Amino acid sequence: MQKPSLPKGTRDFGPSQSAKRKHITDIIERRFQLFGFSKIETPAMEQLTVLTGKYGDEGDQLIFKILNSGDYLAKVDLHEHLNSKELTPQISEKALRYDLTVPFARFVVMNQNDISFPFKRYQIQPVWRADRPQKGRYREFYQCDADIIGSKGIWNEVDLTHLITGVFSDLKLVDYTINVNHRGVLFAIADKVGLSGNEGVFCTILDKIDKIGREKVEAELGEFGAEKEKLNEFLNIAAEQEWTKAFQSISSFLGDSDELENLSKYFDLLQPLGKTNHVKLDLSLARGLSYYTGMIYEVKPTSVKMGSICGGGRYDDLTGIFGLKDTSGVGISFGLDRIYDVLEELNLFPENVENTVEVLITPISEKVLKYSAALLNTLRMAGIKSEMYPEPAKLKKQLSYANKSKIPFVITIGEDELIQKKYPLKDMRSGKVEVLNVEEIIAALN
Amino acid sequence: MQKPSLPKGTRDFGPSQSAKRKHITDIIERRFQLFGFSKIETPAMEQLTVLTGKYGDEGDQLIFKILNSGDYLAKVDLHEHLNSKELTPQISEKALRYDLTVPFARFVVMNQNDISFPFKRYQIQPVWRADRPQKGRYREFYQCDADIIGSKGIWNEVDLTHLITGVFSDLKLVDYTINVNHRGVLFAIADKVGLSGNEGVFCTILDKIDKIGREKVEAELGEFGAEKEKLNEFLNIAAEQEWTKAFQSISSFLGDSDELENLSKYFDLLQPLGKTNHVKLDLSLARGLSYYTGMIYEVKPTSVKMGSICGGGRYDDLTGIFGLKDTSGVGISFGLDRIYDVLEELNLFPENVENTVEVLITPISEKVLKYSAALLNTLRMAGIKSEMYPEPAKLKKQLSYANKSKIPFVITIGEDELIQKKYPLKDMRSGKVEVLNVEEIIAALN
Repeated sequence: MQKPSLPKGTRDFGPSQSAKRKHITDIIERRFQLFGFSKIETPAMEQLTVLTGKYGDEGDQLIFKILNSGDYLAKVDLHEHLNSKELTPQISEKALRYDLTVPFARFVVMNQNDISFPFKRYQIQPVWRADRPQKGRYREFYQCDADIIGSKGIWNEVDLTHLITGVFSDLKLVDYTINVNHRGVLFAIADKVGLSGNEGVFCTILDKIDKIGREKVEAELGEFGAEKEKLNEFLNIAAEQEWTKAFQSISSFLGDSDELENLSKYFDLLQPLGKTNHVKLDLSLARGLSYYTGMIYEVKPTSVKMGSICGGGRYDDLTGIFGLKDTSGVGISFGLDRIYDVLEELNLFPENVENTVEVLITPISEKVLKYSAALLNTLRMAGIKSEMYPEPAKLKKQLSYANKSKIPFVITIGEDELIQKKYPLKDMRSGKVEVLNVEEIIAALN
Repeated sequence: MQKPSLPKGTRDFGPSQSAKRKHITDIIERRFQLFGFSKIETPAMEQLTVLTGKYGDEGDQLIFKILNSGDYLAKVDLHEHLNSKELTPQISEKALRYDLTVPFARFVVMNQNDISFPFKRYQIQPVWRADRPQKGRYREFYQCDADIIGSKGIWNEVDLTHLITGVFSDLKLVDYTINVNHRGVLFAIADKVGLSGNEGVFCTILDKIDKIGREKVEAELGEFGAEKEKLNEFLNIAAEQEWTKAFQSISSFLGDSDELENLSKYFDLLQPLGKTNHVKLDLSLARGLSYYTGMIYEVKPTSVKMGSICGGGRYDDLTGIFGLKDTSGVGISFGLDRIYDVLEELNLFPENVENTVEVLITPISEKVLKYSAALLNTLRMAGIKSEMYPEPAKLKKQLSYANKSKIPFVITIGEDELIQKKYPLKDMRSGKVEVLNVEEIIAALN
């Protein structure tokens, strides 16, 4: 006998958790469709070569590799000095996807002749990372992505913002901020503070400001040759809470630029619908991934301590690595697992989210079992979620099952009921019993 | 530049295929819920020890193993005579699930204190097998499982049959047979034909009768010592097409037995609802998996050449391997990929299955872009799937996008429309244009 366990960082989801997760993904999916995104699915396994080199060295370490099938050592020249790094490409050619963006880029390139651009797709699937598990970080987790590829129009960025506010409005989450920034603006700032050629470094260090504080950011950027005064001036602007003021200040700091105009258009298009109350220009936002080139987003709840629950941005050349040039795209990704934790903490799941069975039929003898099935069938035809206790057990046992399973109504069927064609419908919360015919039961439950 | 590809036996699903797959899983999931099954989810990765030894030697070969992360060779004593079989357990401790049944058994055992039995769960997730890919056989495919565990009542088997007929009725599939048999009856037959102690062998060889024919089955069973005459008598009964006759004959062949009574009760409970027209007793049905002990099912379409599209059965001790004894269960599994192929071949997908956007708004200048957004927002608030072409491109280009994306209606917005507050709604199929205000557009589209 084995005592079974789960791999580190992975989880089972029981009925209650699964129902709550489905509540979230159903809302996200409905919004994706309302906004005109089409669903695609890609396999969990990708060629290792498709994934490696796309997430930086650290990312490559975190990719789960799959052992080749069969006698995978047959062609390997084993010797005692062989190390893991040398052996891996010889015994593994597949890996589990690390995100949904690189597989999407691969999909677009492989299907470019069948796709009409701009192409709007959504994808809700798990991804896997061999990260050290900790609170809110798992080795298997779901991403819910929407991307538009093949259009440079800033309307896409605006529409994705509407999509974000729509999803969180449906989820009843009110307290959150959509922080936005522009990689192009950040690159211009890097140049301005004397870090030409080190724009990537500038973004990476700036991104840590919430964790390590302003002083350390100044020190680290100083080591790369940042001009102290200019940097200080920029960091003062970045600390400004009122985004319209921040925008004015950064405009005079940088002078005119296409990127700033782009950003200004974004806010201009967003304003008429009054959705700007959640959106904030955060000039210190930089995001981790290296492929972003334009606007970037990061959504954080404001009344719960939690990392980003949605993020994204524009990438100008993601498909370029696979041979399709000049195809700009922009997308966002909702993190199901963190959204779940936020809704749980704020008690925002609807009361009936578990969507349980409405009626349990409790047969009290073998004889009635046969005829109770007809009643069960009628209820189901009327769309009422219902089940019959599968054996004529003691009534106490059957009622206890209804209680534990949170089934609100029970119909107990004995031989009298069969003759009368009237059945006692018991409300398990109040204990009240009404004797009704089939039509009345259906009416009462609908 | 890399030319990307997909791992052998895996597939991408584009918008049309994904919409059709969702049509199937939505129907299955709705039926599962109507029948009182609760959703659970288990991780894609399981401990290798949880999976090995559960699917036979051949099955073990087909399990995808995951390479340990980090420097996985650090503790391995490499030498040139090491072979794959010896190395695998030293460098891999996780694997991709092979089916949903063993993970379900693990789940039940690990959560036995929180579960109220009988426990009815459903699970719709992919599984992975390193099988040789061929038509209708993939390395990643979806299973849709419903199981009841913790109840021996034959009503469960009956209810699962209703579930099967309900699902295929919703899918508009009419031509199919649910072949049923009973492992207990097969074991009794094995004894009767002189194969006591070889019941498993009897099932395995009998199961091949459709492929290898009756003569070869007789020859192979003969080698194990089957009595020729008795075997012949049984195979004549098994060839009987009318199941009521087959049932009578096998009853007199075997005499009274609990298993036959069990099977008889099943048909008795099934009959009142008139659902027996799809169900057929097939005494040669044996099924591959070794854990079945009671009733077994296999569903095959009758107007398309295709293997089983749904199957299942009762297992008396699946959780026993993980330490939970005496917990009988019964379940069925729908094969999404094969059902897809059948519906496609019979042209049974509904016309509007792709569920595309209903309206495209085509802005003709930067200026109108900003104000068209308000119209778009109003349409979406009314629940109408709609999008705006994301940049003021040439109208021809925008209309071509609507055509390629199969969007049925287009609203072109110029500056006149902004003043009039009336918009031209164009039906892309007929070419007809109606000039309407917002309320009229919503009414026309609903």
